[in-house]
Amino acid sequence: MVDRPGTRVRAAVIGTGLIGGSVLLRLADAGLDVAGWDPDPATRDRAQGRGVVAPATIEQTVADRDVVFLCGPLPTLPGTLARVAELTAPGCVLTDVGSTKVEVAEAADRLGLIDRFVPGHPMAGAESAGLTAASPTLLAGAAWVLCPAPRAATDAFRWLAGLLVELFGARVVPMSASAHDSAAALASHVPHLLAGALAGATQRAPLRDAVLALAAGSFSDGTRVAGTPAERTANMLLGNRDRVLHELDEVRAFLDGLAAELRADDAPALIARYAEARTARLALLDRRFAGQDREFPAGGDHDAEVAWLRGLGAAGGHLTGCRIGPDAVSYSARIPVAD
Amino acid sequence: MVDRPGTRVRAAVIGTGLIGGSVLLRLADAGLDVAGWDPDPATRDRAQGRGVVAPATIEQTVADRDVVFLCGPLPTLPGTLARVAELTAPGCVLTDVGSTKVEVAEAADRLGLIDRFVPGHPMAGAESAGLTAASPTLLAGAAWVLCPAPRAATDAFRWLAGLLVELFGARVVPMSASAHDSAAALASHVPHLLAGALAGATQRAPLRDAVLALAAGSFSDGTRVAGTPAERTANMLLGNRDRVLHELDEVRAFLDGLAAELRADDAPALIARYAEARTARLALLDRRFAGQDREFPAGGDHDAEVAWLRGLGAAGGHLTGCRIGPDAVSYSARIPVAD
Repeated sequence: MVDRPGTRVRAAVIGTGLIGGSVLLRLADAGLDVAGWDPDPATRDRAQGRGVVAPATIEQTVADRDVVFLCGPLPTLPGTLARVAELTAPGCVLTDVGSTKVEVAEAADRLGLIDRFVPGHPMAGAESAGLTAASPTLLAGAAWVLCPAPRAATDAFRWLAGLLVELFGARVVPMSASAHDSAAALASHVPHLLAGALAGATQRAPLRDAVLALAAGSFSDGTRVAGTPAERTANMLLGNRDRVLHELDEVRAFLDGLAAELRADDAPALIARYAEARTARLALLDRRFAGQDREFPAGGDHDAEVAWLRGLGAAGGHLTGCRIGPDAVSYSARIPVAD
Repeated sequence: MVDRPGTRVRAAVIGTGLIGGSVLLRLADAGLDVAGWDPDPATRDRAQGRGVVAPATIEQTVADRDVVFLCGPLPTLPGTLARVAELTAPGCVLTDVGSTKVEVAEAADRLGLIDRFVPGHPMAGAESAGLTAASPTLLAGAAWVLCPAPRAATDAFRWLAGLLVELFGARVVPMSASAHDSAAALASHVPHLLAGALAGATQRAPLRDAVLALAAGSFSDGTRVAGTPAERTANMLLGNRDRVLHELDEVRAFLDGLAAELRADDAPALIARYAEARTARLALLDRRFAGQDREFPAGGDHDAEVAWLRGLGAAGGHLTGCRIGPDAVSYSARIPVAD
């Protein structure tokens, strides 16, 4: 980890598709010493064409780095993590951008890497894919989950949180890996299932072409992520299977209620249930936050710090800064205010 | 209907909320002689504040009009249709903008108005409501369903189709009322159910605030129409109940398939099913069209004309013009090209 004041941070990105490519381009724009690698030679050429260092091997790419972002497909992450850990010094911080966190966090634990690997997930994306679709601004201002581990030192977490706020304007949401996977099931994975079902039923409908002719906002919005490459969506769902199926049951239960009231022509009940649903939508658009500052000792036992961080994320809050001093770490945060 | 060359079209809009207000503002911008009425006196004042004539009574508003747009809530349409028909001359074209068509078309049939009432539905909207949210550009370029009736003269349909293309740049989709209601069930009504279920389950989730903190594109898109006023959504669903429930069953069947493959950890099957769904999404974004021109005799039997129009809409096509000559009517249309 960089403790050399005035020194440029040296970063690497492994896997330079849509998300990794966007990380890479932003780090390069921000003036970091950055290198990217992708298994696809054409993608490496394309990265070089965009002015980024893209060596031919992982070894060259991660040598002497302060931080490595692992951005390959979900199923490859545990293997890449083990390999990159071997190729880098113990002080090099490792993180990933995968859409599920428990599996890779468990792999890091097995590999003895929880002091230097910080599971991460920037909540942004697009239904497009590849470096050609990447942009240095794709992740600007995004909610970005980082998972501080229990039983681990928090140095890597603190440093990376500060870096993401500084470079991406990230709203860093600290959560346990399992809380992330539960919340992401509803915030992202189930919406992909609903979009797939709507698009799939349309594809099979006798009136398909008429449906597409009439499609306006609700259909277009409701099917957007069905345009995501199928394999990427499948990997995401399979990587969080049990939680996704659980949250899907909850969504279906609410849907069953709406359908039953519709079938019964029960307008007041239908309106009341929609009014309840609308509350969450309005809260999404207009949450009020209050600032909160906290300080923890730099060394020693991190239990109180991790507990506060996890509580912040569970409450829907996020970090807006992290300053590491010689004796103490100071967090600034925003936390939702109850209505 | 206007057959006085060089004369300004005189139009009225009854119900000046989001859609009616947007129609009104566009007609006024286009230089028509236009008047609007709303049961809410404050809304009438607001319309006058935006420079539009807004008399105190329906009688004053619709007197001597060439066309009246009925834009009140769905359940009020049959009553308003009967009243406005009594207050206007037989040559005055009547249309509506309601989100379901069978009910109001049947009401027009019972009232003996199918020669002058053309059921309509512009496929645009917003989760906001009221004249304050209305805009003269909300409906620009929208798909706009118009229903030519069997057994009726097509004069009113032809004239209105031409007017909507000219004033709104509308893609006029001609469909039977029942084909509209079936297609709209999937294109709009079921998406409202899915959005309500996702937002509702989130509202009830123990991790609600964390879900909102992580919500990015897929959740935000997937819940957008859950922000629609609950009563408007309920009216829309109740007005098309049986078709909505039928299409919901089809969507659920596809969703059941996705869930079963996910539960079984069957990656190839899950990928294949998503790839199928993706086809509809890609078709929505990138359909190719070919031009088609058709001419029909101005008078006589309209069966062939109505059959062609309905076939055009069922195939996902739309009208881009309608020119009425002394002996013949000429349509120009765009129709999707098979891949």
